Amino acid sequence: MIKKIDHIGVAVKDLDKAIEIYNNVFGFELLEIEEVPSQKVKVAKFNVGGVHIEFLQPLAEDSPISRFLENKGEGIHHIAYYTDDIKGLLDDIRGKGVKMINEEPIKGSSGTIIAFVHPKSSIILTELVSKGE
Amino acid sequence: MIKKIDHIGVAVKDLDKAIEIYNNVFGFELLEIEEVPSQKVKVAKFNVGGVHIEFLQPLAEDSPISRFLENKGEGIHHIAYYTDDIKGLLDDIRGKGVKMINEEPIKGSSGTIIAFVHPKSSIILTELVSKGE
Repeated sequence: MIKKIDHIGVAVKDLDKAIEIYNNVFGFELLEIEEVPSQKVKVAKFNVGGVHIEFLQPLAEDSPISRFLENKGEGIHHIAYYTDDIKGLLDDIRGKGVKMINEEPIKGSSGTIIAFVHPKSSIILTELVSKGE
Repeated sequence: MIKKIDHIGVAVKDLDKAIEIYNNVFGFELLEIEEVPSQKVKVAKFNVGGVHIEFLQPLAEDSPISRFLENKGEGIHHIAYYTDDIKGLLDDIRGKGVKMINEEPIKGSSGTIIAFVHPKSSIILTELVSKGE
């Protein structure tokens, strides 16, 4: 069962500008800035009332975020939902005909396990997140 | 000061499909379905752990959501943040150079007052929400 929004991923061209706006102007709490080599992105994570907003700047032309920026421009790339039981949730939604990008959970950041739902089944790109075992 | 995310607005072509997916498949709590004539949209509101997700289907070709769908396709249209003091927040961020679509708060739905930040100042279209007086 989905309990809450875990984070919202936002594709941006200029991470420093995003940090300036959301930290200095809007006063969001900046949690960390990190590079994620597997996705070829640099990420700035903010906390807003328990939901994280992650700004993602591509580090290479073949990053998934580069393709998104080319096709749609800057904007929200995905929503991630938290569940205590990602395997049970996957069984449930696959039984209802949902197509997954990841049929089985893969390793996420910060010790989590994650699986992406195919946008055909969720309209917007959707990530499911659970604590790792 | 911004306290939390109030809601996320998602532009969709087919509201019934969005309701089928998010209510029946993902199990989100459907709060209400309403038409908002001023924006020429039909809205389905869901609750996910205290944050609302609002799916917006245009009811006319000149709806702002129609233009978004033409330019970017289905996806997240805006994020709305909750503040106890929208007037104080507007004074603060305008003092930091933020451009607003609404210089003064306007009437929102369900007795709220709202103001949209110009995307040039917030990268993504951003709505500020407060309780009405």
